[in-house]
Amino acid sequence: MRTKATLHGLPVYQPGKLLEEVKRELGLDEVIKLASNENPFGCSPKVWESLAKEREFFAMYPEGDARGLRLELADFYGTSPDRIVCGNGSDEIVQMIARAYLEPGDQAVMADITFPRYKTMTVVEGAKAVEVPLVNGVHDLDAMVEAVNEKTKIVWVCNPNNPTGTVISHTELTRFLSRLPDHVLIVVDEAYYEYVTDADYPDTLSLLPDDPRLIVLRTFSKIYGLAAFRIGYGIASPELARELEKVREPFNTNRLAQRAARTALTDQDFVCNCREANRKGMDQIVRQLENWGLSYFPSQGNFLLLDTQRPAQEVFDVLLRQGVIVRSGSALGYPTHIRVTIGTEEQNRRFLQALAYALEKPIPKEAAR
Amino acid sequence: MRTKATLHGLPVYQPGKLLEEVKRELGLDEVIKLASNENPFGCSPKVWESLAKEREFFAMYPEGDARGLRLELADFYGTSPDRIVCGNGSDEIVQMIARAYLEPGDQAVMADITFPRYKTMTVVEGAKAVEVPLVNGVHDLDAMVEAVNEKTKIVWVCNPNNPTGTVISHTELTRFLSRLPDHVLIVVDEAYYEYVTDADYPDTLSLLPDDPRLIVLRTFSKIYGLAAFRIGYGIASPELARELEKVREPFNTNRLAQRAARTALTDQDFVCNCREANRKGMDQIVRQLENWGLSYFPSQGNFLLLDTQRPAQEVFDVLLRQGVIVRSGSALGYPTHIRVTIGTEEQNRRFLQALAYALEKPIPKEAAR
Repeated sequence: MRTKATLHGLPVYQPGKLLEEVKRELGLDEVIKLASNENPFGCSPKVWESLAKEREFFAMYPEGDARGLRLELADFYGTSPDRIVCGNGSDEIVQMIARAYLEPGDQAVMADITFPRYKTMTVVEGAKAVEVPLVNGVHDLDAMVEAVNEKTKIVWVCNPNNPTGTVISHTELTRFLSRLPDHVLIVVDEAYYEYVTDADYPDTLSLLPDDPRLIVLRTFSKIYGLAAFRIGYGIASPELARELEKVREPFNTNRLAQRAARTALTDQDFVCNCREANRKGMDQIVRQLENWGLSYFPSQGNFLLLDTQRPAQEVFDVLLRQGVIVRSGSALGYPTHIRVTIGTEEQNRRFLQALAYALEKPIPKEAAR
Repeated sequence: MRTKATLHGLPVYQPGKLLEEVKRELGLDEVIKLASNENPFGCSPKVWESLAKEREFFAMYPEGDARGLRLELADFYGTSPDRIVCGNGSDEIVQMIARAYLEPGDQAVMADITFPRYKTMTVVEGAKAVEVPLVNGVHDLDAMVEAVNEKTKIVWVCNPNNPTGTVISHTELTRFLSRLPDHVLIVVDEAYYEYVTDADYPDTLSLLPDDPRLIVLRTFSKIYGLAAFRIGYGIASPELARELEKVREPFNTNRLAQRAARTALTDQDFVCNCREANRKGMDQIVRQLENWGLSYFPSQGNFLLLDTQRPAQEVFDVLLRQGVIVRSGSALGYPTHIRVTIGTEEQNRRFLQALAYALEKPIPKEAAR
């Protein structure tokens, strides 16, 4: 009754505080959660209606390979369904990649600091996580190339990077790819893709037909507002997709998630509106931070990592007591930063007001209304 | 870009035929699917109403550890929530167990023939699947004890066994457990638990407090009729549950599944009615098989493995053309058997009628109505 050796030091994942818990514990009526980069505008209103179509099929297993959704995604992107693998969130695709490609003795290269699941999944498989420090919050692609050796099986790139929100450009990505050897699988995690407005951001899908080493991850959990359902996907060569099929659970994506995603995909107006509102909300917050002289990483996601110049956990606690849940940088490797999800205009105002209080800054005029 | 060695021979899972596909391909209006042991009565009608409670939370991640559901399951069973781990179907618990406990060089003992995921998950982890033949469709517990050695990490027991439907009794299980060494994890998969009417069936949960080697798997996919949602669970010692938490994806069970399961759990009348209807349906089919002189395995599940005395695939094809989808035994290791899910009275009648035609047997009086 011993777990495998690689698990011995692995911590149990600690889930974040729940909205209801915070309300109860602090006796607050209104709490806003800007901690998990969820879409503050919810999802397309068409999603709820479309679930009724599944009502008579609740007792029936979903399409195992999500073929309906894959066909529609392929159509949407102008690619073929045999390049697409769906997951129980794109997290699960991260797991599937590690599970299919990593063995004890292997290495995987990733940024330090980035989305933590790349490292956890690497370690669970008994492989070594080689972490390359960010430079100014941005992937150091040159150093990552240098970190690759004959033992390297995977290179993970998060673009925009979580938690910094920074991006690498199309030119930087293609140069990076040209410098990596053939035996390396390159994962480009584009969970926040739809939020990006930077014109230099990579068109990674256009690189797929010529690069069998590449897999792009996207999700319905962020701008599409379907985090509750758990649905994401990877796009790669048909050969790579077929390898991942071998480690896919037979019914890994649920029927309601498949339906919700298919519906959400048809409502691109919702996506456009959310991207625009996110950009405005980002400006609203950034403007105030600049007034206060606080620094932050330029973000293309729906979140912002900002330097409070104080111990992050203290700021987190003050914000929490005012009913605003953010992510403390102390758990992310940034001891004086907090990561805040861009909310609605009103949520952003409440956040700024709470932050002004926490940092003893002048209360923003807008927020005082 | 090479997958790990253990995947090289692994086949890609081939999903079964979809209802809609069969209808289109064969030009049939009405097709019944008795192939995946789904509940023909659907799920509790309360489930649909309860989903509305989640409507405003579609953009928000679910409770990572499904604590609400775990609390209610603990209450239902009179146990504690720290003994319970929820999965994206109990399939995922199978994966989590293999992932946490198996390494290359390890062995896992299981029946031949049983639920195929035990073997697949064992092989993916690079461990050896030691398969012990059933005797008359029943687990050969003596031979399984003998197959255990110092390399054995896991023993898988499916009870009722899929695809035979046979059970081992409480006395047999406790004797089996007493003969297994301390270093072995024993998984008792009770996916069909709620269908069982045999009084000698084990009360496995009662053994848990005194046996840290034991984990019991159950699911909402079968009698609860929630296969579409993907939700199952394991119950074990708190220590074992904590180890599985280490390999659990942070948000592995979706929000709607958690809600649906919590609602379904409160409707035990539905469960009782389904169990009773299943028993009647089983009698309805078995009576006719005996009239025809066809043999079958005595089943405590919601399915029946019967010997058609002909090549299974041929019988499968004739049934399919008549609009009845069953599972051919040829893929299950029973070349002349078919596995049929017990349906509604009317579905069972249609199945018997189609089977009479396929096997050139006298059409049952009941079915001819």
